[in-house]
Amino acid sequence: MIDIFAKHAALRAAYDGLTAVSPRNPFEVVIERPLSATVGLIEGRETLLFGTNNYLGLSQSGHAAEAAIETARTMGVGTTGSRIANGTFGLHRKLEERLASFFGRKHCMVFSTGYQANLGTISALVNKDDVLLLDADSHASIYDGAKLSGAQVIRFRHNDPVDLEKRLARLSDHPGAKLIIAEGIYSMTGNVAPLDKFVEIKKRHGAYLMADEAHSFGVLGENGRGVAELQGCEDGIDFVVGTFSKSLGTVGGYCVTDHDGVDLMRLCSRPYMFTASLPPEIIAATLAALDDMVAHPELRTRLQDNAARLHAGLKAAGLQTGEHVSPVVAVTLETVPQAVGFWNALLENGVYVNLSLPPATPDNRPLLRCSVMAAHSPEEIDQATAVFKQVAEHFRD
Amino acid sequence: MIDIFAKHAALRAAYDGLTAVSPRNPFEVVIERPLSATVGLIEGRETLLFGTNNYLGLSQSGHAAEAAIETARTMGVGTTGSRIANGTFGLHRKLEERLASFFGRKHCMVFSTGYQANLGTISALVNKDDVLLLDADSHASIYDGAKLSGAQVIRFRHNDPVDLEKRLARLSDHPGAKLIIAEGIYSMTGNVAPLDKFVEIKKRHGAYLMADEAHSFGVLGENGRGVAELQGCEDGIDFVVGTFSKSLGTVGGYCVTDHDGVDLMRLCSRPYMFTASLPPEIIAATLAALDDMVAHPELRTRLQDNAARLHAGLKAAGLQTGEHVSPVVAVTLETVPQAVGFWNALLENGVYVNLSLPPATPDNRPLLRCSVMAAHSPEEIDQATAVFKQVAEHFRD
Repeated sequence: MIDIFAKHAALRAAYDGLTAVSPRNPFEVVIERPLSATVGLIEGRETLLFGTNNYLGLSQSGHAAEAAIETARTMGVGTTGSRIANGTFGLHRKLEERLASFFGRKHCMVFSTGYQANLGTISALVNKDDVLLLDADSHASIYDGAKLSGAQVIRFRHNDPVDLEKRLARLSDHPGAKLIIAEGIYSMTGNVAPLDKFVEIKKRHGAYLMADEAHSFGVLGENGRGVAELQGCEDGIDFVVGTFSKSLGTVGGYCVTDHDGVDLMRLCSRPYMFTASLPPEIIAATLAALDDMVAHPELRTRLQDNAARLHAGLKAAGLQTGEHVSPVVAVTLETVPQAVGFWNALLENGVYVNLSLPPATPDNRPLLRCSVMAAHSPEEIDQATAVFKQVAEHFRD
Repeated sequence: MIDIFAKHAALRAAYDGLTAVSPRNPFEVVIERPLSATVGLIEGRETLLFGTNNYLGLSQSGHAAEAAIETARTMGVGTTGSRIANGTFGLHRKLEERLASFFGRKHCMVFSTGYQANLGTISALVNKDDVLLLDADSHASIYDGAKLSGAQVIRFRHNDPVDLEKRLARLSDHPGAKLIIAEGIYSMTGNVAPLDKFVEIKKRHGAYLMADEAHSFGVLGENGRGVAELQGCEDGIDFVVGTFSKSLGTVGGYCVTDHDGVDLMRLCSRPYMFTASLPPEIIAATLAALDDMVAHPELRTRLQDNAARLHAGLKAAGLQTGEHVSPVVAVTLETVPQAVGFWNALLENGVYVNLSLPPATPDNRPLLRCSVMAAHSPEEIDQATAVFKQVAEHFRD
């Protein structure tokens, strides 16, 4: 009998190598419970959380929790059905209308996860006769949606309009539809996409453009509509996809657009149709978090201030970070054992960040992915950068 | 510029045909709010719900709602992170341990949706060198998982062990792993799989067997462990996948197994890794619903009694149903206009069921999919079958 797990041999070796040098498994950290937006109990210790996607701190919004509580009390804990059967409550429609209005778009579809929003949008829009042009550093959910769609996939160099245009020019005779996909902020590095440039290019080449603003929704733009708003090119984005599990602190995803054709996506997008809809208390919490976000634009100002403070602090500690200030700050290290040791030392000193190892990292070097929240106090940021500095000095010795 | 929506022309025609004859869109029903497990407000009318997956009525469990409320209050409304980063709270581990123990298995992984449980399990277990043997009537999430995996897909005739064995025999020289996938109860027809027969076959042919007990978990077997428990063949099932959005009334999915190799699935299953974990209040509600299910085996007895009552009532009304008594009862009709008219008349008379149209139906005839809950009173069932009878008489005239 063939061992179905034999295919994981290389991964097993890498994993065994990692666990041999790491006192704890970096991918099995347990937050016993959150103590606030910025502090969690890990291994019995109060730990500063600098590796989440909770940019506005809204996972701990009292307003969102109250909405969830009230709704669980009056509507129960789930729908047990698909959006196209018994799974559309009035609240699901209300959230779709609210999001469409927030983005100034005609249509909105809500999905049960952000992952499924990308799978469901991409696989419904393109098929084997079409071409997808994907930024090479695209999130796994974009690549998985591409695979599910069966479309031809062409990657362009990360954030590179010249490379994108070159590849599109070669496709001028291609009879299929062309869909360019880029993210707003890239989750691992904090890089911001030149969506405004991509809009010019898509217009020249008769392509469609989809932007995944998962990490930029609520974070960038005067109203928090993301990179497209910041760069003033929202009109040129055909489809905006995003998630509730970052700035809004809940779970789920959405697609907004002005194209009327999406009404049929509700009847052919399998990741939309063949899954239970989100429980009503999650929808209510998401609506409340969206209200918080709109009512408190100062959260975005504070987030940017905090991003600048963390970025400057890490740079001053002699660490290698990206050039741009962003709520995601990637500290690049040279070797895996160094990164693993560094990550463990941070955690032992009360600072949690994300460890990213090759081959999952953009340039095949290990990263410590740090992220900042509006909810962090200046003191918490200074404390974290002090720990970073102390650990870095230890590793330099 | 190529119209990206042109590919939906056939679907558009079918959709326009449907909406021309139907007073309302059958796939856009809104439950304004649930009034109880069995009654929802639809178009301003109190409507009996006979088209959900809420088999035990636990979406309205007070115990589950209290758990969600308490947890939203103390832990917030989300984790904002992947299970392999900041998205594992103590509660996620607790639910995994509880489910492993419930099923008497060594390992359990919890996924953010049932859809992602199938995608994540299948795509991590097999790849292009392997063969998947899928029941022809498999759920979309199984087919989508197969597509994502890249494995060769061979379909066998629905619930047919002879056909499965014939196809496996032809693969005796195939060098890859072979994974058979069947569901416990099929969602559209209520058919029960001969898992015990499939176990014998998988043993003879050195294959693995995965059972998706989404619709049978909590429903069949002395302890609610599903069809495998009912048929006494749990030892022969390598991987059991299921969902929280049916008998437990919340949202999410799981995979349980005794194979130690799954520890690496946490590091290579993309639909597990690249999605935010379930919010803590959903996990708490799911744990509470599982407690309800275990503490109240009489829910299963009542469900079976109700299934028998609905089945007998529909048969007595002269409708064409399947032979077997199951919580899912499919009423088969002959033509689409007849089914659409029938479905609308039921809803206008206060009974909601699911409308299933070809090509999504097993034998290309339209179905009215009815499902029953433990929470239905005998009177509610009798009322529903009376409405069915009255509508059927009208359509016979």
